Amino acid sequence: MRKILLDENEMPKYWYNILPDLPEPLPPPLHPVTKEPVKPEDLEPIFPKALIKQEMSNERWIKIPEEVRDVYALWRPTPLIRAVRLEKALKTPARIYFKYEGASPPGSHKPNTAVAQAYYNAKEGIERLTTETGAGQWGSALCFATKLFDLKCTVYMVKVSYYQKPYRRVLMETWGGEVIPSPSDRTEVGRKILEKDPDNPGSLGIAISEAIEDAVKHENTNYSLGSVLNHVLLHQTIIGLEAKKQLESIGEKPDVIVGCVGGGSNFAGLCYPFIKDAQKDGIKIIAVEPKACPTLTEGAYKYDYGDTAGLTPLLKMFTLGHDFIPPPIHAGGLRYHGDAPTLCLLVKHGIIEPRAVRQIPTFEAGVMFARTEGIVPAPETNHAIRVVIDEAIKAREEGEEKVILFNFSGHGLLDLKAYDDFLYGRLQDT
Amino acid sequence: MRKILLDENEMPKYWYNILPDLPEPLPPPLHPVTKEPVKPEDLEPIFPKALIKQEMSNERWIKIPEEVRDVYALWRPTPLIRAVRLEKALKTPARIYFKYEGASPPGSHKPNTAVAQAYYNAKEGIERLTTETGAGQWGSALCFATKLFDLKCTVYMVKVSYYQKPYRRVLMETWGGEVIPSPSDRTEVGRKILEKDPDNPGSLGIAISEAIEDAVKHENTNYSLGSVLNHVLLHQTIIGLEAKKQLESIGEKPDVIVGCVGGGSNFAGLCYPFIKDAQKDGIKIIAVEPKACPTLTEGAYKYDYGDTAGLTPLLKMFTLGHDFIPPPIHAGGLRYHGDAPTLCLLVKHGIIEPRAVRQIPTFEAGVMFARTEGIVPAPETNHAIRVVIDEAIKAREEGEEKVILFNFSGHGLLDLKAYDDFLYGRLQDT
Repeated sequence: MRKILLDENEMPKYWYNILPDLPEPLPPPLHPVTKEPVKPEDLEPIFPKALIKQEMSNERWIKIPEEVRDVYALWRPTPLIRAVRLEKALKTPARIYFKYEGASPPGSHKPNTAVAQAYYNAKEGIERLTTETGAGQWGSALCFATKLFDLKCTVYMVKVSYYQKPYRRVLMETWGGEVIPSPSDRTEVGRKILEKDPDNPGSLGIAISEAIEDAVKHENTNYSLGSVLNHVLLHQTIIGLEAKKQLESIGEKPDVIVGCVGGGSNFAGLCYPFIKDAQKDGIKIIAVEPKACPTLTEGAYKYDYGDTAGLTPLLKMFTLGHDFIPPPIHAGGLRYHGDAPTLCLLVKHGIIEPRAVRQIPTFEAGVMFARTEGIVPAPETNHAIRVVIDEAIKAREEGEEKVILFNFSGHGLLDLKAYDDFLYGRLQDT
Repeated sequence: MRKILLDENEMPKYWYNILPDLPEPLPPPLHPVTKEPVKPEDLEPIFPKALIKQEMSNERWIKIPEEVRDVYALWRPTPLIRAVRLEKALKTPARIYFKYEGASPPGSHKPNTAVAQAYYNAKEGIERLTTETGAGQWGSALCFATKLFDLKCTVYMVKVSYYQKPYRRVLMETWGGEVIPSPSDRTEVGRKILEKDPDNPGSLGIAISEAIEDAVKHENTNYSLGSVLNHVLLHQTIIGLEAKKQLESIGEKPDVIVGCVGGGSNFAGLCYPFIKDAQKDGIKIIAVEPKACPTLTEGAYKYDYGDTAGLTPLLKMFTLGHDFIPPPIHAGGLRYHGDAPTLCLLVKHGIIEPRAVRQIPTFEAGVMFARTEGIVPAPETNHAIRVVIDEAIKAREEGEEKVILFNFSGHGLLDLKAYDDFLYGRLQDT
């Protein structure tokens, strides 16, 4: 059987919260000014109470609301697919399975949390969400989700992407979102920057500041984040919970689990439900990041800000410094200077193994995948596929029948410019 | 249940051939020079024997080779999805189901035949296929399919699309295809045109001529067509055969079946398996075409050429004349001057009802679908959705619990420019 499907009624009814199962308590986020642990009420100007509660919860299982499951059912449960043709091409005895999160309408895992966030905000009477987006993966997921709960959505999109990558902008607008090239004259922050430098191309850091300012200054408006935070990772665990059921249904157990890491949400979503038994079961869990932004492999484990301007709480994480600016690699989703605090803690304890890969080998892997399994992966996903192929070759060399599981976090149909650059030799091997 | 899934082992093992079940024998294609019925050997310079046999077969059921089913399993069986949120938004008592063909790697129904054609050509020792493509839907499906059977693929892409719509060109190249802007200096036809007019923007007619000339003049090279012919429609019937099984599994029977029509292949794929009992069961079957290219609603039923230059066999069909040039609507796949001969015969007998719709109402329907069901449809698919919505509103007005089934022929992630034009009022209502 190539595709392992689940019926709608087999969709998990609870998300898994890893906090009570961490090897040591998670160091708390600190207030950027007082440096004291952040209190729930500090977050209320931008997040709904339900999400703040989830962010700090120690409950292992958190019920997925019926209204959220009903939207998930538009594309979930996602299939678990065995990459038989890739295995053959690699002549490997390994069995390779991937969880296909590209099946969602926006084409990635991002709506798993966008839908939950839209739901809780709508329930608490919020009328509009703001967020930032770089290339547009997260912004399009949030526009999709807010439309289904009758919320408005304002997306501050890095200006250079707004003009150079119009397709995801149009996608957001098709779902009814308002997309603003950032820096903009909508906010204090934006106006100040434009005054000094009218041609400023924008950055994710600036866009975050604009989105937060917009949310803080307007009634019934909240801010929404697409990764890093505990509640975001929590919502993504539906990926791993489904995958676990699917593997069990065919009597398989993973030996190796692989995912790419930007802020950590797709990776955590797949692997967290396996973590508790990972050491007992001897599962190797590999977090793949770009060599160009080697947070987990070369960063320092310390408190740092989440944004460039230093306005967010301080988080204990592996970080390259909040002023780190990575080279412009195509995997825009993997260019974050830090990583989710829970993930960093697990790396520190050696439960998760980080690995950094260069850009060109990731596209070689992606093209091989497209030419065997048919699906064109997103540049971020290519990072996971690179390591999957490396592990499958290793299994061949060592003659071992490994079971490799990875998260296919998104398809690359809106990233074809990157493939063009690769195919015509214009890609830098950063 | 929102999604009705089938397991891989429930995938149909036979395609359905409508020829023996037509209300009268199909008028034969005529040789363009002698005007005599075409003989199998006339087609051998460009098609493999197995496909010529299928083209003329009177067998009702034709076995799907294991190798083809194995590739189909990459994305088939496709889900049948109930559009619950669209129903709610329309306040209709109708139950709306769609067969989601956008789930294939190239994003449309086209690979159902591309895979079969690549397989039969490979089996008869052919090493390369040629074809033409406009916007790139068909070309990308054939590049995907040929790569999986180790065939080379040369796609003559209308030059203006090659430069204006680079994304599908990159997709074809990612799958290993060779994409040539047409007119080109690769062929006699192309060179003659370029000599007279070096800036000729190209047309589908020219690209067809180049692809056929390339196939005829080279060893072990065949030509491949993406619609109109009997064997192409035959391969698409897997859509309707699956849908029938899926509806039966939940005890539903369609009252109305809707699809969009360019050459007729996605439409026939869905509805042909229902045709035999359609009149007995009182099923209304609606073929939707653009008002800008009203072949079935305003064309004449007569023998005409399949291409602009008059090199192909003459086919008995509804036609606007082989020199008809429709306005440049975004649904590039629906701009053909004729239609599949079997489909035309069924329209002539009143078994299929044709309906023409204007461009703007189709995009209104597509955006409504995207904002309720999440998936952004291709401009071609929007034609079907327009009529589905009209029929659902009619059911509401008449208080009837109709079951409406339609073919979601492809997603619109590579057609976002069209949505941009619509959202910003730049779309013509042709």
